[in-house]
Amino acid sequence: MSNNIDTAVQSIEWREDHVRILDQTYLPGREVYSDIRDVGRIWEAIKKLRIRGAPAIGIAAAYGLYLGIKDLPENSFESFIVEVNRVAEYLEGARPTAVNLSWATNRIKSTIRAHKDKDISKIKEIVLQTAKTIHDEDKRICKKIGENGVELIPKEAQLLTHCNTGSLATGQYGTALSVIFHAHEQGKKPFIWVDETRPLLQGSRLTAWELMNAEIPMKIITDSSAGLLMRRGEVDLIMVGADRIAGNGDVANKIGTYPLAVLARENEIPFYVAAPLSTIDMEMETGDEIPLEEREQEEILNYSDAQIAPKKAEAYNPAFDVTPHTYIDGIITEEGIIEPSFEKNFKNMFED
Amino acid sequence: MSNNIDTAVQSIEWREDHVRILDQTYLPGREVYSDIRDVGRIWEAIKKLRIRGAPAIGIAAAYGLYLGIKDLPENSFESFIVEVNRVAEYLEGARPTAVNLSWATNRIKSTIRAHKDKDISKIKEIVLQTAKTIHDEDKRICKKIGENGVELIPKEAQLLTHCNTGSLATGQYGTALSVIFHAHEQGKKPFIWVDETRPLLQGSRLTAWELMNAEIPMKIITDSSAGLLMRRGEVDLIMVGADRIAGNGDVANKIGTYPLAVLARENEIPFYVAAPLSTIDMEMETGDEIPLEEREQEEILNYSDAQIAPKKAEAYNPAFDVTPHTYIDGIITEEGIIEPSFEKNFKNMFED
Repeated sequence: MSNNIDTAVQSIEWREDHVRILDQTYLPGREVYSDIRDVGRIWEAIKKLRIRGAPAIGIAAAYGLYLGIKDLPENSFESFIVEVNRVAEYLEGARPTAVNLSWATNRIKSTIRAHKDKDISKIKEIVLQTAKTIHDEDKRICKKIGENGVELIPKEAQLLTHCNTGSLATGQYGTALSVIFHAHEQGKKPFIWVDETRPLLQGSRLTAWELMNAEIPMKIITDSSAGLLMRRGEVDLIMVGADRIAGNGDVANKIGTYPLAVLARENEIPFYVAAPLSTIDMEMETGDEIPLEEREQEEILNYSDAQIAPKKAEAYNPAFDVTPHTYIDGIITEEGIIEPSFEKNFKNMFED
Repeated sequence: MSNNIDTAVQSIEWREDHVRILDQTYLPGREVYSDIRDVGRIWEAIKKLRIRGAPAIGIAAAYGLYLGIKDLPENSFESFIVEVNRVAEYLEGARPTAVNLSWATNRIKSTIRAHKDKDISKIKEIVLQTAKTIHDEDKRICKKIGENGVELIPKEAQLLTHCNTGSLATGQYGTALSVIFHAHEQGKKPFIWVDETRPLLQGSRLTAWELMNAEIPMKIITDSSAGLLMRRGEVDLIMVGADRIAGNGDVANKIGTYPLAVLARENEIPFYVAAPLSTIDMEMETGDEIPLEEREQEEILNYSDAQIAPKKAEAYNPAFDVTPHTYIDGIITEEGIIEPSFEKNFKNMFED
């Protein structure tokens, strides 16, 4: 059992001069790896969810920014930084909700400005090094999140999770799934209800795959079944990830998270969010300010080649919703579990 | 506009000596009609959801019972009624949750007992006549439900519905959808959010098809999106059907109904159930006693030929949940809108 955690799959890797990703659109049917050498294909991979999950998007964007600037002319810093900003803005446009994307590009831009007196060839090396650091840090952060969250998990508990928050969604280990992996490793014997997570089925395709690889018992359910299970007392705790957390603790996460939180409160079930501190965006006072991505209606109207709605039918496909902080019992981070009031505790944390 | 209601599709028809059903498993891609001449194929059609919806199941079972007894020997009433009971029990086993199935078979059995002194050939005629009466009554009842519910629908309202409760689910018109059809016919201009209704997608396949045929504006959403829309104020009223209603007003309906009701209450949105009185089962004191069908996990693990979960993954597939009566603002029936306390009002109604 204990070796499962460290042999977990790598969703993204830097290989000498390019990025290799596990293309998640083929899972669970096939494990297809793609080598990516230019920023355009990184953008496409993020947009099309070949790589997904807020932390993994940040890592991909960091490497993507390097790929986008590595061949720029090296004569003038002023024209170099203009191009860096252009490439960063392009990457940030791939998906609007996860703050980790712009967090990663902003971090690299700050690093560049801090080294503006160096040769541009040297700055390029520093950019790649920063991307690798973001990647390595994310693995360590996710491990800490897992370790910090384990105390919340009762022995032999039935947990429920939504979307995918595992190694596939991060540098390694995951966020909410990292807690579950660590609880399993410590012999707590968790059982997991996996929301399938329509429309793109990250739960049944990806979370189920990761849990089965780790030999953690689980069953897939339709997203609509969570309420019945909660009411029957078959869910002891809910744990999800986050794409962006506002300054008051409101959480933007995969569509369907808000209903789970309301049902959890109604049935007196603890509801926890696991996320790195980089997911907290103090520039957003409340969740109402977080931009929520709306995706193509085709994702709802067709599945693979099957037509599942009438021709010319229209669909509305919001990819995220916002869970008000009042429904959240705690946010598990690499620095420990943050409890309400989130607003006060975030301020204390970020002002230190 | 006004002719849409009466030209609505017929999900089931009696044709001289057999039943013709519109096989709903092929919708919306193809309109396939099946002629059924024996009780075994009626059972299979109910089991496999070729015909579905609580009232339509009752009608199909009534015709199915006739098909199952029409060729029985005509010498002894005692051996005839034993066989009738056997065929009825067989049909009732096809799907356990909708009470309309056993309501229909029980009604025919009572009729048979009332005519036990007649020739068995005559009794057989009476059985067919009773099945036709159940069918005709359902059409009239559904029309009355639609007419009775219209007063609840504000002008230009955004309504949300779940699963399919239209002509496909009943003799004609539907229950919750009958209210929507009538509101549309009266010029109230409703807009409908259609929950896709996993796993079998009765919303996106069937409700969307019926609404488009009636030229009522609608958009399909994933079941998980309903919460976001409610919180944003984009849902004025929720209306669903019912498979069985307990004596205290608890409602068993398609999985996902209970979450909608909790979210509606949380967001102060009226939540109504539309159903014929035959759906009320006074033998069940509360919803906890209602048997809830669990279906094959394959419905979640695969879609058409596409593998949407890892090989050997397991799923749990409850087809119904129970919404406690406290979340329900009213039940629209052919006799009018029943308000809480349902227990008291049901008793008054059924004791009259």
